[in-house]
Amino acid sequence: MSHAVHPFEEIRILLAALPGPDLQAAEAVRARDGRLTKPPGALGRLEEIVEWLAAWQGRAAPAIERPLVAVFAANHGVVAQGVSAFPASVTQQMVANFLTGGAAINQICESYGVGLKVYELALERPTADFTESPAMDEREAAATFAYGMEAIQGDIDLLAPGEMGIGNTTSAAAIYAALYGGPASRWTGRGTGVDDAGLSRKNAAIDAALALHARDLADPLEILRRLGGREIAAMMGAIAAARLNRIPVVLDGYVACAAAALLHAIAPESIAHCIAGHVSAEGAHRDVLTRLGKRPLLDLDMRLGEGSGAALAIGLIKAALACHSDMATFDSAGVSEKSE
Amino acid sequence: MSHAVHPFEEIRILLAALPGPDLQAAEAVRARDGRLTKPPGALGRLEEIVEWLAAWQGRAAPAIERPLVAVFAANHGVVAQGVSAFPASVTQQMVANFLTGGAAINQICESYGVGLKVYELALERPTADFTESPAMDEREAAATFAYGMEAIQGDIDLLAPGEMGIGNTTSAAAIYAALYGGPASRWTGRGTGVDDAGLSRKNAAIDAALALHARDLADPLEILRRLGGREIAAMMGAIAAARLNRIPVVLDGYVACAAAALLHAIAPESIAHCIAGHVSAEGAHRDVLTRLGKRPLLDLDMRLGEGSGAALAIGLIKAALACHSDMATFDSAGVSEKSE
Repeated sequence: MSHAVHPFEEIRILLAALPGPDLQAAEAVRARDGRLTKPPGALGRLEEIVEWLAAWQGRAAPAIERPLVAVFAANHGVVAQGVSAFPASVTQQMVANFLTGGAAINQICESYGVGLKVYELALERPTADFTESPAMDEREAAATFAYGMEAIQGDIDLLAPGEMGIGNTTSAAAIYAALYGGPASRWTGRGTGVDDAGLSRKNAAIDAALALHARDLADPLEILRRLGGREIAAMMGAIAAARLNRIPVVLDGYVACAAAALLHAIAPESIAHCIAGHVSAEGAHRDVLTRLGKRPLLDLDMRLGEGSGAALAIGLIKAALACHSDMATFDSAGVSEKSE
Repeated sequence: MSHAVHPFEEIRILLAALPGPDLQAAEAVRARDGRLTKPPGALGRLEEIVEWLAAWQGRAAPAIERPLVAVFAANHGVVAQGVSAFPASVTQQMVANFLTGGAAINQICESYGVGLKVYELALERPTADFTESPAMDEREAAATFAYGMEAIQGDIDLLAPGEMGIGNTTSAAAIYAALYGGPASRWTGRGTGVDDAGLSRKNAAIDAALALHARDLADPLEILRRLGGREIAAMMGAIAAARLNRIPVVLDGYVACAAAALLHAIAPESIAHCIAGHVSAEGAHRDVLTRLGKRPLLDLDMRLGEGSGAALAIGLIKAALACHSDMATFDSAGVSEKSE
C-alpha cells in the first residue's frame, strides 16, 4: 500500500469498496442442491456452507484445494500488568512448537489436509503497555494491517486467520469493551487460565486503559492502535485481502473475532465473506458473534486460539463441499422424487 | 444367540450385564492431557472425547484405525397410511445409491476415512402396518436384534449405526410417544419433508397405534416389536454388540436415537458408551437427547439420517484424538508452564 493519503484513511477507503458476493454462483449451487439424492434441506447448514463458498469464491462449482490457517504471533506490553497465567516467553516458544509440528493446530490441520503458515510480528519488541500509552502508533498499526494483507496471496481458496500472543485476550477484551461498552468484566474471561487475582488484574488493566484512552475510542482504527496488538492488525489485513482475492474466511474464536469486530465496526459488509467456525468458551465470545450476525458452526467449549476452532470447522466445510460436489442426482441414481 | 430362554428375556439379561468403562485408561488420558502444550481444558470437549474413547476402548492410548458407519435399511408397513413424502421404493433405491457411492453418507465417510457397510433387512417384506397390528412378532424382533449384533465384528474401533427406511421417522416418533408420553404431535416432525396434510396423517397414524397397543407399552421391547422397525431392532443389537467388543458408539439423529432410547429404557447404563454425534432438526430430537443425558457434538440443522450426522462427528473425533496422541508436551517442546 502506498501512503499518499493518511494511512488509516486508506484502510477506510479500501474497506468501503470491497467486492460483493457472486449471487449467480450461489443460485447455481442452490439449483444443483435441489437435484441431489436427499430431501430438500436435509443437510441443513452443510447446504448453506456450500452456497457461502460459491458466493465468495465466485464459482458455481466451489473448490477447496488449498485451505490455509495463517497464524499471526505477537507480544503485548500489557503482560507487565500480570494479566496472563503464562509468561510472555511462551509466545516465542509456541511459535517454535508450531514450526516443529507439536501444537494442537498442527494436528488439526494435518487431520484435514489444511496448510499452516506462521507469521512472527516482531516478537522481541512487544507493543507498548496500553495502560500507559497507545499500544502502537498509526504508522505501525497500518503497516501491520498491510503486512497481514500481503501474507494472503493468490493460491489459497479458504482462509482461517489464527493467532498466538500471551496477553492477547486482554487486548481483545479491551477492544470489545471499547466497541460495545464496558466495564471490562463484561467481556473478559480467564484466557489461558488466570486465577481470581489474575482476572482482577486483567479487569483493572482494561478499565484503566478505557479511562486513559476514553476520548479517542470513537474510531475503530484508533481502538486498534491504542488497545490492539499486531496480530489483531494483521488478521484485519488478512481478512480484507482474502475478500479482494475471493477467498472465503473462517473465523476462529475470541481473539480472532476482535479483528472481525473492528472491521465490522468500520464497514459492516466488510466481513460478509466470513463464517464463524466456532464459539469459544472464553468470556463473551457468544455475545460478540451475535453482534457480528454470525452463527457458529461448532460449540465445543474450546478456548485455545491458534486458529484451532476454525481449523476444525474447515474439516466440516470440506465434507459439506464433498457432499455437494460428489453426490448423485435423482436422475443419475434412479431415485424417485417426492410423491407429493 | 441361543433361544433356550424367552428371546426378550435373553436381551434383558444381556443388557443388564454389559461391561463398564476402563477408568484407569481414562485417568491415563487425563494425565497425559495435562502435559500437552496448551492451557488445561483449552481444547474443551475434544479432551472429553479422548477420555471417552479411552474408557470404552479400554486403552490408555485409544486409536481410531477402523471406524465404521453401519447403515441398516428396512421398510415399514405404516407407509400405507400416507406418512412419508417419498414412496417406499426409495428405500431400495437409496441402498443402491449407497452401494454405488452416490449418497451423502458416502461423501462424508470418504472425507474422513470412515468405512461404510450397508445391511438390507428384508426390504421386499415390510413390517406390518402398526396402526393395525404389531409391526413384528417377538421372534422376528429378537432375531433382528441378534442380526444387528452379529453385524458388528472384531476389527472395528469406532461405530456409528445409521439407517435408511421410508416411514421410519413415524416409527421413531411412535416409540418416543410410547416411552415418554404422547400425543404424537409432541414428537413428530416432517421427516423427509411431508406437507401439512402428510404431517396430519402421520400424527393420526401414531395416535391410532398408541390407542391400539395402549395396554402393551410398558415394556420397551414390546414397544420395539409393536411400533418399531427392523433397522431400529438391528441398531439396538449393534449398539449392544459394540459395548461387548469395546467399541465406542457415535449416535446419529432422530431415528438412530430411537434404538438408543429403547436400550436406555431397558437399562440406562447400556448406552453409557455412546456419544451423541449431532442434534437433528427433526421434531423432538433435542428433547430425546436430554432424556438420554447426551450433549450433541454438532448442531447443524441436519435431518438426513444415513448416519450422516454421526459420520461428521467422527471427523471431529479423529481430530480430537490426533491432538491428544501427537501434540508435544511442555517438556519435549521446551514450553514454559503456568507461572501461577
